[in-house]
Order: sequence, then C-alpha cells, then structure tokens
Amino acid sequence: MASVKAERAARTRQKLLLAAAEVFDEAGYEQAAVTQIVERAGFTLGALYFHFGSKQGVAKALMNAQSMTIEPHLQSTGLQRLVDITLVWADRVRRDPILRAGVRLAIEQGSHGMNDATSFEEWRELMRGHLEVARDSGELRDGVCPDRLARFVVGACTGIQVYSNLATEHTDLMERVCDMWGLLLPSVASEAVAHGILVGPVRVPRT
Amino acid sequence: MASVKAERAARTRQKLLLAAAEVFDEAGYEQAAVTQIVERAGFTLGALYFHFGSKQGVAKALMNAQSMTIEPHLQSTGLQRLVDITLVWADRVRRDPILRAGVRLAIEQGSHGMNDATSFEEWRELMRGHLEVARDSGELRDGVCPDRLARFVVGACTGIQVYSNLATEHTDLMERVCDMWGLLLPSVASEAVAHGILVGPVRVPRT
Repeated sequence: MASVKAERAARTRQKLLLAAAEVFDEAGYEQAAVTQIVERAGFTLGALYFHFGSKQGVAKALMNAQSMTIEPHLQSTGLQRLVDITLVWADRVRRDPILRAGVRLAIEQGSHGMNDATSFEEWRELMRGHLEVARDSGELRDGVCPDRLARFVVGACTGIQVYSNLATEHTDLMERVCDMWGLLLPSVASEAVAHGILVGPVRVPRT
Repeated sequence: MASVKAERAARTRQKLLLAAAEVFDEAGYEQAAVTQIVERAGFTLGALYFHFGSKQGVAKALMNAQSMTIEPHLQSTGLQRLVDITLVWADRVRRDPILRAGVRLAIEQGSHGMNDATSFEEWRELMRGHLEVARDSGELRDGVCPDRLARFVVGACTGIQVYSNLATEHTDLMERVCDMWGLLLPSVASEAVAHGILVGPVRVPRT
C-alpha cells in the first residue's frame, strides 16, 4: 500500500512540475500564478504547497530536475558518458518543457530574487563521478583533474546554451556542443581512447 | 567647436551609463526607473532619451559596452591577446559597475522581455579578429577555426561567469578562466607558441 501511495505522490509531483514548466514558459516567472499551475495540473493549491512549499520551491525543483530527464536514457560509461550527457542535453533542451524551464530558471534566477547554485553543483558532482571512472580506466591524460574539468564543462555548457538560444533559438546548440568536444578532447582524452570517443547527434537515443 | 560638443556628449553618455548600471544593480532592471537614472547622473530625461531612446535602449548600450572597458588596457596580439581579454574581463567584472551590469543584463535579458545576441556577436567578432592574426602568425594548430573557437570562448566565458557568480560571487572567476585556458591551449596553440602563452592574474594591468 505504501508504494502505491508513493507512486501516486511521485506522479502528482511530476504533473505539477510539467504544469509549472508550461506556465513559467508562457507567462514568465514573475507573472506566473500558483493558481494557474494547479488548475492546469488538475490539483489543489494544497498539493502544490505539500510538494514544493512555494512558487520559488517549484522553480528550484525545476532547476534541479535536469539530470533526471537525461541520465535514464544513457548506458555508456566514463568519458563517453560525459560526452553523451551533454549531447542528449543539447537535443532535449529544445523540446522537453521541464528541462527547458529548468535551464532558463537557473540562468535568469537573479532577476527573480533567487541565488542558488545547487543545480550547477549537482551537475558538477554527477560529471565528476563519471570522470573519476574515466581517470581510473586510463581514459584521461595525466594531470587532468576530474573535478576541475567537470566544473568547466558545466559552466561552458551553460553559456553555450544562453548564446545559442539568443542567436538561433537553440537551432545550432548541438553543433556548438560538438565543437566544444572537438576543442576539449585532444587536451583531456588519453591517446589510447582519443579516437574511440564518439561525438555527434548519432549518440542521442531516439525515444 | 564641434569636437568640444562631441566630447561633452560622450561624457554625458558615459555618466548616464554609469548611473544606469548602479540603479539597475540596486533596484533590479524591472524596478529601476529612468527618472532615478537621470537624477543620479544629474541630467534631464531629455538627455537620456536623446542618447538611448528608452530604458531598454540604456540596457542594450550597457550590454554592448563590455569590450570598451577592456580593450584599451591591452597591448598584446594574437592568441595572447585573446587570453588577456578573458583575464582582464574576469578581473574587472567584479568591480567595474558598467561591465557588471552589462554582463548581468545580457544573461537575464529574457526575463526583461529582451532577446538580443548583439553583445555576444560583437565579442565573437572581436575575438575572431585576434584569432585570425594568431592563425596567420602560425600560432594556431592546423584545423582550428578562428570563428568557431571565438564562438566557443564567448559561450564558455558567459557560463563560467554565471556559475562562478552563483557559487562564489565571482571570487573564483579568475581561477576558472585560467582553468579554461589550461584545458584549451594544448588543443589550439601550435607547439611553437604553446609554452610561450602566459595565463594568470599577472596578465591583468594595474590601473
């Protein structure tokens, strides 16, 4: 019984997140009302406050939901996993409303009175984990620090997305992320794996 | 006589920009009023409308004033110039109000109803120019495209700044930009110059 209840709660939370992503996208964060969000999701205000506490709480949950929309689609490990994460992210950010809202809120949060690096630190930690596997498998060049490389990739992808969105509405985001790996891999991948790492839209699973 | 007038106009414009940067910084873009800006600068509303047309016009001018606060301090050329631009930018962004406001407005503009890639494209063009000099002097590895590298550096610095600001209020921005060059130079600099390119706060002129 407990698991049925937990599953229902998880579904409610997910529906609220999706409705919030759509409302933030259409109305902008400032203009969006929590009543609109719960109406669209088909729940009560109580459900929203139970799951997220406040409108800012929903926004933070959206910022932190990014990796959940990407990791489950991937099988690779080590350095290839890191590359794949960024390619799937570049592909999904255009069409997954939860991911799109999360990315936008993380960037513009300063103008909404928020100042929260959590989503960035969570990406960094996740990427560092994959890079430690890469290092332990001899995939990284000597002297490449998994944590600093992870920190750089999180920052670089953030800004590439901002620029691509303003310049081409994300049309060239995949190309820009591939360029990043073209520039980074010769410096970070050990010679043994450098030519085996695949980069390109072909790495994005079709779901 | 004409040049005295032009000089006075340039000084007025600069004072208005500085006042706008401070008011946007204190009140946030949405809450900032043009009347506050002109009062602080000691001019009339007419002067602001003459120079910038509107509040959004001032914001755009701030976004596009970034390179003006950096280029005049530099003497280097080619790849070293590109490195120096990013180091001086990392140093100044914490304490030059016009630069800080410009960077923040460029990032958060979506939430203010703006959608203008001009400041990014101007940085890219400026950097591409220095990279073409670098390529023509044999400083770049074969196959490194000045325009794509410029596009990547603009995007990467943008995101590094966002992440550093949220995580440490820019305290580690210089370190993060140095990390970027540590990762990029081995891939992009030709062997002849790779060890001659200097990276670090020592490259920032004290003014």
